[in-house]
Amino acid sequence: MSVLVVGSVAFDAIETPFGKTDKIIGGAATFIALAASYFTKKINLISVVGGDFPKDKIALMQRKGINTEGLQIKENEKSFFWAGRYYNDLNTRDTLITELNVLANFDPIVPPSYQDCQFLMLGNLTPTIQRTVIERLHRRPRLIVMDTMNFWIQTAYEELLKTLKLVDVLSINDEEARMLSGEYSLVKAAKKILSLGPKVLVVKKGEHGALLFKEHRVFFAPALPLEEVFDPTGAGDSFAGGFIGYLAKTNDVSFENMKRAVLFGSAMASFCVQKFGTEALLDISDYQLNERVRQFVDLMQLEGEI
Amino acid sequence: MSVLVVGSVAFDAIETPFGKTDKIIGGAATFIALAASYFTKKINLISVVGGDFPKDKIALMQRKGINTEGLQIKENEKSFFWAGRYYNDLNTRDTLITELNVLANFDPIVPPSYQDCQFLMLGNLTPTIQRTVIERLHRRPRLIVMDTMNFWIQTAYEELLKTLKLVDVLSINDEEARMLSGEYSLVKAAKKILSLGPKVLVVKKGEHGALLFKEHRVFFAPALPLEEVFDPTGAGDSFAGGFIGYLAKTNDVSFENMKRAVLFGSAMASFCVQKFGTEALLDISDYQLNERVRQFVDLMQLEGEI
Repeated sequence: MSVLVVGSVAFDAIETPFGKTDKIIGGAATFIALAASYFTKKINLISVVGGDFPKDKIALMQRKGINTEGLQIKENEKSFFWAGRYYNDLNTRDTLITELNVLANFDPIVPPSYQDCQFLMLGNLTPTIQRTVIERLHRRPRLIVMDTMNFWIQTAYEELLKTLKLVDVLSINDEEARMLSGEYSLVKAAKKILSLGPKVLVVKKGEHGALLFKEHRVFFAPALPLEEVFDPTGAGDSFAGGFIGYLAKTNDVSFENMKRAVLFGSAMASFCVQKFGTEALLDISDYQLNERVRQFVDLMQLEGEI
Repeated sequence: MSVLVVGSVAFDAIETPFGKTDKIIGGAATFIALAASYFTKKINLISVVGGDFPKDKIALMQRKGINTEGLQIKENEKSFFWAGRYYNDLNTRDTLITELNVLANFDPIVPPSYQDCQFLMLGNLTPTIQRTVIERLHRRPRLIVMDTMNFWIQTAYEELLKTLKLVDVLSINDEEARMLSGEYSLVKAAKKILSLGPKVLVVKKGEHGALLFKEHRVFFAPALPLEEVFDPTGAGDSFAGGFIGYLAKTNDVSFENMKRAVLFGSAMASFCVQKFGTEALLDISDYQLNERVRQFVDLMQLEGEI
């Protein structure tokens, strides 16, 4: 099944305790689409970049099976740019620079060839743009997954609520779940959030794994304890790409299959953090991916009865 | 199999966002022994209290199958007392009062009837006292599990290293594992700690579950996402009690069985935090315990192949 990915395609400059990059390519949609490309070759991208965005990186995405017909290039403008510095624990970071540039007036155009979209992944963007994409699709996709962030919860709450009503799955981190619901307990937070529209909630907890909530059911996926975490940028988006990519590949949106999708998403996130930016997502073999997922399964494997 | 529990039996005064207690009974050995009492009725306690410790609470422990022959009562002294206040997230706390009292000169006497001990749980105490108990046993127990805390890592590091060489399992929290090893990555921390003596490391991560490390194997047990956490005091000790209690009951110290023991430990911890102090550990039915463990298994259950 095809996946439609909406989100930023951008430049990042990252500083971690282990090193520092100049401007490298990043953006939610870049990570999502690259991670999803390991599961399906029918990926359609909606985003916008400036004339400064390297054409060879667009060609690279195309070679990965990502259709960039919906990627607008504003030749006389500049791409979205984010710079951040991570603290030693890699869980906290300071934003040093945010230049919206082309994103400031982003009008997401849906090419006619994208209209058959069955799996829609709304990467982090203003809730209004996310909703516009849904409205511009002639037929509702089979599954709509949405990400958001603290900034929109604080500054565009009403718009966010409107978009939330239209989606099937919300995938956010624990801090965002607490902020959106006003509840510290993630069980209570999940109950509240699931009353706002989404039927399923994924709570990403970084090195502590992920929780999947649907009605009264909960699944807890571990994170792989890694020896080295190099750069957490894009981990949540890689998770989302693996999650929706696996669902699209298997064309099965049952809770049981979503559990497996969470493990594949977690596997993609675990690759992502091992190198700077998108680097680790560019060349993963089937063998490596399957081995990685096997490690996740082993981590939670109980033999015999209890 | 019998379990020998060493640690504090004490008074706590606790303040959480949900309420406040006067002096109630607490102490590592109290939580450990009560949690273990759901798995075996052969529990031997080594500790010390003052004349102020209520005799009816000792009788209550006895009714739970806890042999208090090794519980010294210093009639003219006062029991150990700790008072603390938890922050809103319940993960951080301030210590308001620490009165060592009888613990200051604690000499752990091992009654002859305890000498057949096969499972030894060394609750948090000075590493020197922990080692003294091991040395006073004529025969090495089949399994020695040890807990410790930041305070001993910082103030009694050399003594701690000596004791660590003598134990089979170290059960500590993530912060302590990082401090003891000087490594942020828990994988690296585990490698270092396993080179110090213990063959197995349990890293308790509170609401994020627990990790079990042995050689190159890792197991990740979830924590139960709870709607209400009332008081985290004693959760780690309840975990330890459930862990060693289950191992003693099954008399199986294989890695596979330790995984199950981690789930039973996690179940005991999840009961503990739902009421103040030891209250929730006083009356758990077999049905409730099995249901709780079933919830943990469900939480990580994958159906079918991946």
